[in-house]
Amino acid sequence: MSKKKNRYVVGFDLGGTKMMAVVYDEAWKGCGRSRRKTKGFSGAVAGLERIRETIDRALEEAGIERDALAGIGIGVPGPLDSERGILLELPNLGWQNVAIKAELEKVFKCQVVASNDVDAGTYGEYRFGAGQGKRCVLGVFPGTGIGGGCVYDGVIIRGKAISAMEIGHMCVLPNGPLCGCGRRGCLEAVASRLAIAQAAAGAAYRGEAPYLQSVGGTDLTKVRSGVLAKAIAEGDTSVEVIVRRAAGWLGVGIGSVVNLLAPDVVVLGGGLVEAMPEIYLEAVEKSARKHAMPAFHDVFEIKAAELKDDSTARGAAAWADAVLQRGVTG
Amino acid sequence: MSKKKNRYVVGFDLGGTKMMAVVYDEAWKGCGRSRRKTKGFSGAVAGLERIRETIDRALEEAGIERDALAGIGIGVPGPLDSERGILLELPNLGWQNVAIKAELEKVFKCQVVASNDVDAGTYGEYRFGAGQGKRCVLGVFPGTGIGGGCVYDGVIIRGKAISAMEIGHMCVLPNGPLCGCGRRGCLEAVASRLAIAQAAAGAAYRGEAPYLQSVGGTDLTKVRSGVLAKAIAEGDTSVEVIVRRAAGWLGVGIGSVVNLLAPDVVVLGGGLVEAMPEIYLEAVEKSARKHAMPAFHDVFEIKAAELKDDSTARGAAAWADAVLQRGVTG
Repeated sequence: MSKKKNRYVVGFDLGGTKMMAVVYDEAWKGCGRSRRKTKGFSGAVAGLERIRETIDRALEEAGIERDALAGIGIGVPGPLDSERGILLELPNLGWQNVAIKAELEKVFKCQVVASNDVDAGTYGEYRFGAGQGKRCVLGVFPGTGIGGGCVYDGVIIRGKAISAMEIGHMCVLPNGPLCGCGRRGCLEAVASRLAIAQAAAGAAYRGEAPYLQSVGGTDLTKVRSGVLAKAIAEGDTSVEVIVRRAAGWLGVGIGSVVNLLAPDVVVLGGGLVEAMPEIYLEAVEKSARKHAMPAFHDVFEIKAAELKDDSTARGAAAWADAVLQRGVTG
Repeated sequence: MSKKKNRYVVGFDLGGTKMMAVVYDEAWKGCGRSRRKTKGFSGAVAGLERIRETIDRALEEAGIERDALAGIGIGVPGPLDSERGILLELPNLGWQNVAIKAELEKVFKCQVVASNDVDAGTYGEYRFGAGQGKRCVLGVFPGTGIGGGCVYDGVIIRGKAISAMEIGHMCVLPNGPLCGCGRRGCLEAVASRLAIAQAAAGAAYRGEAPYLQSVGGTDLTKVRSGVLAKAIAEGDTSVEVIVRRAAGWLGVGIGSVVNLLAPDVVVLGGGLVEAMPEIYLEAVEKSARKHAMPAFHDVFEIKAAELKDDSTARGAAAWADAVLQRGVTG
């Protein structure tokens, strides 16, 4: 049976370590997918070729041809010129100034909409997850860094030529710890998974976190979210204090953004949330409500993200579809 | 000569000390105005009556009847339920829960759109002033407090039931000075005209600001923006240091908002900017660029507001017109 033309949308998640393509039908059911390593180090030209192959494999699994595609939405881990579809810089991949929209449109003969991965994830939660139908959804994704996104009246808030909502780089502690961006006291420098890992590894080194120490937790690469959760469960109270403190800082930043954007819902996603939803969400929420103005104290909810692994692919696809249907500039 | 029906819009600026009504024609020319004291202390019922009289006097000056009005836009100094047009709290007037939209619609038989005064001022700059035609305009108005507004894709960013963009209540200095809102370390507590006045009055008291001391500047009510500018011009270097420091703090807050919203232009208005545009704007800009992420360093301009006294009335009228024409929820 032949599939109808122009009825499918591909969502693509370009991650630092993995890439994934999912083919969605009109009911947003995933009907084909392919996942492989990104291998950013092999360069952008080889990378674009891997992206093409990954999409083709997903199409093959779905049993449809390229000409059945209405569009492709791609979420990327870094700033981009969303109007022209150019990846400005992907530090985790070592790529710079890649015209991904033009390159993929040439190959697949359909429109391509590029967006920041966190923006795409937030849009996914707005369309299909914890922020469904809300007027203003703030997405916050603490991980190695801290990503943010905002969907306001159904549209992703973004800069003219670069993505925005860099909540991780709000200054929350003037002259505080050095951040990866070169400045001091950014939210990321006190509240990210990396900041937690640094503090927890220090506790392990000093003998204050016996379980963490026993699993090699003086090495930052080993202090992943799951390990932190396990250490807390095994009785490393110093680790719980560190996690709650970082979550409290995240609440400081979220409180300030609530005072600016008055979101209906704040959706928290990422590894820390998934590994310890109760402790982490509770600590973030307590601090965020304290740091919101009295008038904003009760007007927002804080919820865990619902889409998990597919959030970027699904959100990027849905945003591409919205852009194509409404003629909004992507 | 009789004037055409439904062709005029009234802009109303409800201030803490003064109220003003301006009648605008289709070319946004002011063709009638009336201004008087607010007298908030006499209560909301008497206040609504004064508002009615003020609008009627402006209509009279313009030589038009009530039925020539297409709508009324009113800007108010406090949080409001913009959908229902209810003033939630006007601390400077002592009013609470005033259904201003319903009350005025009953009297004038046309639609009334209420907005926050800073939102209205920012919209005015977007339509007629320093932010004309820009995709994202951030308005910042430091005064006794620090107000903020944002027009994104032609629409005022606002909460579901309350106005938003409370930039003055971002937390920039955890455990810092007490703010009027009851929390600590808000931008307003370190960078407002009141914070400057407190520091400058202290300098005058200690004999470090001879000119300011000579004009009674140990009394906070006397340390207005014009007096601060005069003191700097007369050689009170300690006052200049205080003003630059506060402007630097404002830049910390603006830098964080730039990282979130990536505005094309930041429009600064209010008394401090008008009294010492050069010193103040320079210090704010230097700090804001330093606190923006590298990727955002050069993508925004900082400009002085252009509309001055009429900005709230004009912006409120233009926003009302936009809401009525587009059917956007006000």
